[in-house]
Amino acid sequence: MMSPNPGTKYRAFPPVALATRTWPDKVITRPPIWMSTDLRDGNQSLIEPMNVQRKLRLFHQLVRIGFKEIEVAFPSASQTDFDFVRRLIDEDRIPDDVTIEVLTQSREDLIHRTMESLQGARRAIVHLYNPVAPVFRRVVFGKTREEVKEIALFGTRLIRQLADARPDTEWRFQYSPEAFSMTELDYAKEVCDAVVQAWGATREQPMILNLPSTVECTTPNVYADQIEWMHRHLAQREAIILSVHPHNDRGTAVASAELAVMAGADRVEGCLFGNGERTGNVDLVTLALNLYTQGVHPGLDFSDIDAVRQCAEACNQLPVHPRHPYAGDLVFTAFSGSHQDAIRKGFARQKAGAIWEVPYLPIDPADLGRNYDAVIRVNSQSGKGGVTFLLENECGLSLPRRLQIEFSRVVQQATDATGKEADARHIRTLFEREYLDHRMPYAYNGHAVTSSASDGMTRLEIDVDHQGRRITRHGLGNGPIDAFVDALGLNIRVMDYHEHAIGSGADAKAACYVELRVDGGPTLFGVGIAGNILTASFKALLSGVNRHLLAVAQEVQRAEAVPA
Amino acid sequence: MMSPNPGTKYRAFPPVALATRTWPDKVITRPPIWMSTDLRDGNQSLIEPMNVQRKLRLFHQLVRIGFKEIEVAFPSASQTDFDFVRRLIDEDRIPDDVTIEVLTQSREDLIHRTMESLQGARRAIVHLYNPVAPVFRRVVFGKTREEVKEIALFGTRLIRQLADARPDTEWRFQYSPEAFSMTELDYAKEVCDAVVQAWGATREQPMILNLPSTVECTTPNVYADQIEWMHRHLAQREAIILSVHPHNDRGTAVASAELAVMAGADRVEGCLFGNGERTGNVDLVTLALNLYTQGVHPGLDFSDIDAVRQCAEACNQLPVHPRHPYAGDLVFTAFSGSHQDAIRKGFARQKAGAIWEVPYLPIDPADLGRNYDAVIRVNSQSGKGGVTFLLENECGLSLPRRLQIEFSRVVQQATDATGKEADARHIRTLFEREYLDHRMPYAYNGHAVTSSASDGMTRLEIDVDHQGRRITRHGLGNGPIDAFVDALGLNIRVMDYHEHAIGSGADAKAACYVELRVDGGPTLFGVGIAGNILTASFKALLSGVNRHLLAVAQEVQRAEAVPA
Repeated sequence: MMSPNPGTKYRAFPPVALATRTWPDKVITRPPIWMSTDLRDGNQSLIEPMNVQRKLRLFHQLVRIGFKEIEVAFPSASQTDFDFVRRLIDEDRIPDDVTIEVLTQSREDLIHRTMESLQGARRAIVHLYNPVAPVFRRVVFGKTREEVKEIALFGTRLIRQLADARPDTEWRFQYSPEAFSMTELDYAKEVCDAVVQAWGATREQPMILNLPSTVECTTPNVYADQIEWMHRHLAQREAIILSVHPHNDRGTAVASAELAVMAGADRVEGCLFGNGERTGNVDLVTLALNLYTQGVHPGLDFSDIDAVRQCAEACNQLPVHPRHPYAGDLVFTAFSGSHQDAIRKGFARQKAGAIWEVPYLPIDPADLGRNYDAVIRVNSQSGKGGVTFLLENECGLSLPRRLQIEFSRVVQQATDATGKEADARHIRTLFEREYLDHRMPYAYNGHAVTSSASDGMTRLEIDVDHQGRRITRHGLGNGPIDAFVDALGLNIRVMDYHEHAIGSGADAKAACYVELRVDGGPTLFGVGIAGNILTASFKALLSGVNRHLLAVAQEVQRAEAVPA
Repeated sequence: MMSPNPGTKYRAFPPVALATRTWPDKVITRPPIWMSTDLRDGNQSLIEPMNVQRKLRLFHQLVRIGFKEIEVAFPSASQTDFDFVRRLIDEDRIPDDVTIEVLTQSREDLIHRTMESLQGARRAIVHLYNPVAPVFRRVVFGKTREEVKEIALFGTRLIRQLADARPDTEWRFQYSPEAFSMTELDYAKEVCDAVVQAWGATREQPMILNLPSTVECTTPNVYADQIEWMHRHLAQREAIILSVHPHNDRGTAVASAELAVMAGADRVEGCLFGNGERTGNVDLVTLALNLYTQGVHPGLDFSDIDAVRQCAEACNQLPVHPRHPYAGDLVFTAFSGSHQDAIRKGFARQKAGAIWEVPYLPIDPADLGRNYDAVIRVNSQSGKGGVTFLLENECGLSLPRRLQIEFSRVVQQATDATGKEADARHIRTLFEREYLDHRMPYAYNGHAVTSSASDGMTRLEIDVDHQGRRITRHGLGNGPIDAFVDALGLNIRVMDYHEHAIGSGADAKAACYVELRVDGGPTLFGVGIAGNILTASFKALLSGVNRHLLAVAQEVQRAEAVPA
């Protein structure tokens, strides 16, 4: 129950005494140093943390995007994390221009273990943290300011000593006063200055000082004031790479990071799509693309944002929200007629090489490998008459969101051609014709499947018609879909997969929706319906393949129809 | 493909010349006027807009939360919207202290239709908008500044005239210069001043001037500068309720709204959980609770945030993300041992009536009707050993997220008791014992179901054991679950429902997970597995009911065991 007098339970955050702040007049003209903590902060806050395979997959995705600093583990906290660091080093998986980073608490055994994990690395950032905020000193540890500072200094000196003993690795040191944003500024400065001195940082050999909002507890301007205060007051600013690590408890992490960079931060730590403890870390995709749409290249490549999203969703087992900036399913979709009209005019006027000026689209979706979707409603705002509603209620089909959008365009083309609204029967016919009735070039006849417990592999024999000729093929994969793709021998990438029951009891059927790319072409859907869920999946794959090949053939026809 | 030189394609937003800005020193000490546009801006950006039933459900939810201004429709744009306004008025559904608002473009026919929809309303806000930004003037309309201003004035005068002719309704006027944040400030001021004068707004009878960031295109400090500039320069500021309507294209709508209120805005328009066009409008839940955690009561009640979320998800058919501030599944969950330790100490030290000071929890979850979840990992960060992974791979069960968390606690209690890690067999046994083996007091035997096409109702006969005695009951509902709850005759509220297939072909089974509340008690899960998906659902309901009744009985036992 919310308190009627929250002032007795929650304290307003005190403002920062910063007479002549300069950040509100700043404009960001170059990107900060990016540090991805997807494999550490992001990973430790998952319901199921990643195994080594998933960690490797995400690591290589981060490298492809262009991250040069990647926090890969908390090696003293789990064997999986330790082994992962070893594997990266032993298998020489770290590109020359990428530096891995590991986190440790300030305890002797943990620091030894952490340094052990890095044996043989070309280059590494060792990231030390300890909680310094008053609530931790008082409630959690029962320690004085001096005692807490001493914890930081102990760890700093030990890491310095162990690093000096291993000159073959190029070491960089990072310190985070945990819950900085809830800490008295003068004390945060005192601890940080002492650590910088103990490490012996210099302009030539700077260290990273990271100031986290471990829990976001103020409006973003106050965090910016805190950062500018530190930026101005730190004793050896020139020996410091100033870093921020904003969390999103108040939904303003992106703003906090942006204002903090204006206030003097050189570096931002975060995760793809804002993964991380509780409400997450700041979203590095949004930050990077915010810069991009202001004409500043972020140094990160999101040209195929759907692939990045797919990887993050698979590794984190968490969805990206349909309204997530730049990446969500719905963010380049216009439903309103007046928006569609303005966008159409904008596209028509937009010249190649000119400044982007299409209304309602803050970025060209093509820059991210995406499309703009104009969704025309079959029966404007009636709900009851909508395509999705009709298919669900008349046919028991629950289309995934992106298929709803794809099929809406099919309906739109049909209604544009006839000038009439589509009724339920018409929509059902359109759906069947578009997704279910294709039997050329491929048609499903049957399959036989065996899965082996010993090697975890699936072996599949498929019986299909190809161009009307019956063929049998064999495939092998780590699951039936995989094996089916192998058996077909085509270049198919399955992007997404949904299946659900239609009806119940003995008559129940399965409907399967597969989103795929064939031969690197555009993403599209296939749909299969059958009494057996595997049959439905295979039919869905063939439906997608047939639709792709039909589109290619139509494209060729159109090209040939153009007079030379 | 992202451009290597985005500066040639995207223009940096120019800063505002605001020499002595005051907003960075402001602190928000009272809530703005809230306006919910869930039923208008939110609704029109749904894949399937709401029908009247869903609109009514959400309207009453908004009233319960405490919204006093609710934009309910765009009546001239759709018959559904027109009918909805009529229904609210004709059925007298608008509380005395709530004002409905409707949107219209500045066209004669649309304004007449809009005013017609409000016939007989006690009080109403008529909201006029027209696009004024240069990209619209140039690309979309091909009109001059003067011509575009004239569009605004035409609508203002016509609404004034029609309103004056109907003095029985208490009218308030609202004007939005569309895409304000992309408009030259001097021109925005010129149009707004002219509209305020044409309406004849006064200190006693003010009008609402709403300044939308129709597309978010700057860091939030620039939007705040724009708002402060208008706040200071508008000719008749005293006759104006200054309103903002931030969108979230750059992921900073919450920050934009907060800084705009510091800059002089009196009122904020947005949606629950940030629904709305593309990336959505500003999230009013986050804004309100951000205020609350600073000790300022927002005047909105989110004491049962799960119920609000459930309603919004059902009406919008869009999920709330697991990391959404205050409302997401994971935001009060701690996975790391050190976080859990700090939180435990914080709870132990927290006194009733004292300032809230539990580390990592920016708000007391109990204020929102939620719990804090400490998730202990069965096998820390190994992934392969986790509970969810084991159940999925060993038993084919895909637990919904909140059930994963609930069951993790069951596993934790078991491992705490034995001091050992749980292996796959142990976890499976724990799951079966906790969810599947209960047959007391209720056990499923069979059912018969009929659905009528004429009235859309489901009639159900159930055959269950109650306390070992076989009974037959009849139930009626708009679906089988509903009818089953009716047949049982218990006070059960179904919060969420998942079902999936296990295995394939003839041997496939269905697993069903139901999240429910019995007798207003805490939310909990029931699970059912069966060859028939309806049977699985009914078993899941009984599993939940049995678990609830067992917990109640154990509570009574514990209470009786305490010496008086």
